[in-house]
Amino acid sequence: MRMYDLILKKRNGGEMTKAEIEFFIEGYLTGRIPDYQASALLMAIFFQKMTKRETADLTMAMARSGEMLDLSGIEGIKVDKHSTGGVGDKVSLILGPMVAAAGVKVAKMSGRGLGHTGGTIDKLESIPGFSVELSKEQFINNVNRIGLAIAGQTANLAPADKKLYALRDTTATVDNVSLIAASVMSKKIASGADKILLDVKTGSGAFMKTVEDSFALAREMVDIGAGVGRETVAVISDMEQPLGYAVGNALEVKEAIATLQGNGPKDLYELCLTLGANMLLLAKKASSAEEARARLQELVEKGAAFNKFKEFVAAQGGDITAVESPDNCLPKARLITEVKAPKAGFIAKINAEEIGFASLVLGAGRETKESSIDLAVGLVLHKKLGDYAQAGDVLAVIHSNDPEKTKLAEKKILQAIELSANAPGKRPLIFGVVTSSGSKTY
Amino acid sequence: MRMYDLILKKRNGGEMTKAEIEFFIEGYLTGRIPDYQASALLMAIFFQKMTKRETADLTMAMARSGEMLDLSGIEGIKVDKHSTGGVGDKVSLILGPMVAAAGVKVAKMSGRGLGHTGGTIDKLESIPGFSVELSKEQFINNVNRIGLAIAGQTANLAPADKKLYALRDTTATVDNVSLIAASVMSKKIASGADKILLDVKTGSGAFMKTVEDSFALAREMVDIGAGVGRETVAVISDMEQPLGYAVGNALEVKEAIATLQGNGPKDLYELCLTLGANMLLLAKKASSAEEARARLQELVEKGAAFNKFKEFVAAQGGDITAVESPDNCLPKARLITEVKAPKAGFIAKINAEEIGFASLVLGAGRETKESSIDLAVGLVLHKKLGDYAQAGDVLAVIHSNDPEKTKLAEKKILQAIELSANAPGKRPLIFGVVTSSGSKTY
Repeated sequence: MRMYDLILKKRNGGEMTKAEIEFFIEGYLTGRIPDYQASALLMAIFFQKMTKRETADLTMAMARSGEMLDLSGIEGIKVDKHSTGGVGDKVSLILGPMVAAAGVKVAKMSGRGLGHTGGTIDKLESIPGFSVELSKEQFINNVNRIGLAIAGQTANLAPADKKLYALRDTTATVDNVSLIAASVMSKKIASGADKILLDVKTGSGAFMKTVEDSFALAREMVDIGAGVGRETVAVISDMEQPLGYAVGNALEVKEAIATLQGNGPKDLYELCLTLGANMLLLAKKASSAEEARARLQELVEKGAAFNKFKEFVAAQGGDITAVESPDNCLPKARLITEVKAPKAGFIAKINAEEIGFASLVLGAGRETKESSIDLAVGLVLHKKLGDYAQAGDVLAVIHSNDPEKTKLAEKKILQAIELSANAPGKRPLIFGVVTSSGSKTY
Repeated sequence: MRMYDLILKKRNGGEMTKAEIEFFIEGYLTGRIPDYQASALLMAIFFQKMTKRETADLTMAMARSGEMLDLSGIEGIKVDKHSTGGVGDKVSLILGPMVAAAGVKVAKMSGRGLGHTGGTIDKLESIPGFSVELSKEQFINNVNRIGLAIAGQTANLAPADKKLYALRDTTATVDNVSLIAASVMSKKIASGADKILLDVKTGSGAFMKTVEDSFALAREMVDIGAGVGRETVAVISDMEQPLGYAVGNALEVKEAIATLQGNGPKDLYELCLTLGANMLLLAKKASSAEEARARLQELVEKGAAFNKFKEFVAAQGGDITAVESPDNCLPKARLITEVKAPKAGFIAKINAEEIGFASLVLGAGRETKESSIDLAVGLVLHKKLGDYAQAGDVLAVIHSNDPEKTKLAEKKILQAIELSANAPGKRPLIFGVVTSSGSKTY
């Protein structure tokens, strides 16, 4: 088998066999196939697409390129959740305890990654004492005992995906739906969960800008899951503006705690209920979405979800007091600055990417793998799409440790928020759900 | 400027600016732009094509990536000739003296290259004493004095093309008409000629298999020439079977000598007249193709063309006796073997690639840059397309220095030649001529 022939075949519109895909992934990971042949194949794939079968084979070849986590030591159906990424997305912090309180087993490995804030494990580290370094035994014991554990990714999961992604990122071959789907699913499959719930974001702040593209990506991933025996469901949710109000690590933990206590932003809570209901269905802990949703609401209202969060924090060494009094005990920034509306008007647009960039500027996220992040900083929106602001009303509050960065962030926030004489049209929070048996549009 | 953005632009169907193309070529040659980004761009070009303007800019950027030969020391219009390559193509050996005898200035730099035989300079080296190592002064003086010089390529011509071609060769991005045209034309332009005559081969033994593709490539190259002020004309000629009878270095020199003496194969002589007439027109040494053709025929018939060849050989140190008695003085193989027709029939097909491979097997060509070649070996066809052979008639004669290689070559030759009860349809030798003002189909 020669890589040249494989490039030529795909370039001419042919379908790669499973053996050819495995030859490519193994050869590329070991370095026998050079970057320049891999990038030529990727560009050919961009133009010629891949079939469902090729995509599933690529996914499994990448999943098997490294460690495949064995979660068989955990009883019951393990459900993993993955978001395609958005600004203010603190859903995992809420969803984990919520569904664990309903009896779902959540064993989550999470990377730190790059972005406008840290990842889930960075956010959790704003709780004093909290540790994401769990041995495999601790990880499995915690899930068996309390239903939930979140650990830093120590395993070598899907290294071929990592290497390929870095190449795609420099060769303009990221945005092909099959390659994106295979990348996400390979990591999820290597992570060992039995079932997978995906939160596919859509809108200007998401990777997929249009609803149509988001459904297509969801369908691709759900089909991969079905093809390899890991039932997958995808919820398509809005990312036309940040989710909730808070953007920044400790600030998001605070908002997550409020949500678990029933006092969170409406959109965030609503999304968690929808995602959570689908996780309960996947784990066979409910027989209908309505029943699942009612169950989760009850668990939040009666305090069981927040109690599960405290149990989880304690199990990973975190300080419960901090969770009970986040205002006092979570990391705090020194400089609090209000950003005020320069004129009156309806909030017609909130550019989520610009808001994310403001957060990054403040130091809440990593620009490179080596960057350290400031857990205290970030921003809290006071207005969301459709709200009305008088001139001088507070649009957002900046939490910063550096006056220069505050200025930059303020500029970004004012650029991000568009005030208009007219109220914007309503946009749904949930666009639909994609399962292996069909799609439901809301 | 970032290479990433350039890949993305082309991938999305955009047109690269001149500055972007220069940035790419310069960055790639110096190594600032890595292979994997270059191959991604090449694959994007394969799918999205390039405009005439982009192709001309790429050609000039590659031409200027190395030395640009200055032939201004040669008086008159310098015309260079290039063939896209075929089996038995010894045209340069004949055409140079023929048109030089008519007053055209031919200053040719030639590489050794890979292939089923050596290049023009390898062939010339079968003449004892002949040297292709000329100083720049000798080269220019010889052209001024006798109208013709052929030197080994010592200059660093279009190194970016060389580097890119090697990359295309391993990434299935060779066969794009703009990239092929830019590659050929960049070297020709760097070689310094004022005008360029192209012999674009068409048929199963050529790089371009269909007449349509051959015309498209010809048009692309002629337009590049026009775009950069180097008038270019392309003749589209047949390569459905080898040109002439001889394949092999010294064997081809012998056939070239016979042709210069008016005793060559009909197809070879006819092609040389057509190409030569177009060179005379380009050099303004004739006012019509008919006049040019008659002039060249006369020069051959009266011995002036052959005399020019001898003058040329002598000027580069070659032994005139060898040219006058090639049968005695050119390198000779030890083993002469006849390949006989296994049955009677018309010659319905001669697979030129297989014939070329037989020649390579015998040692007439280089498989890698480091291979040495045997100037004496090769084969001489005795039948061409449409000829009739009785069972046992000689189809070809193998000249070899190794009995094992003879066997292999014989097998290849018998595979290459198809005998049929029916005579094949007539196929033209010349399909047409493409100039900047239009195309003429024959």
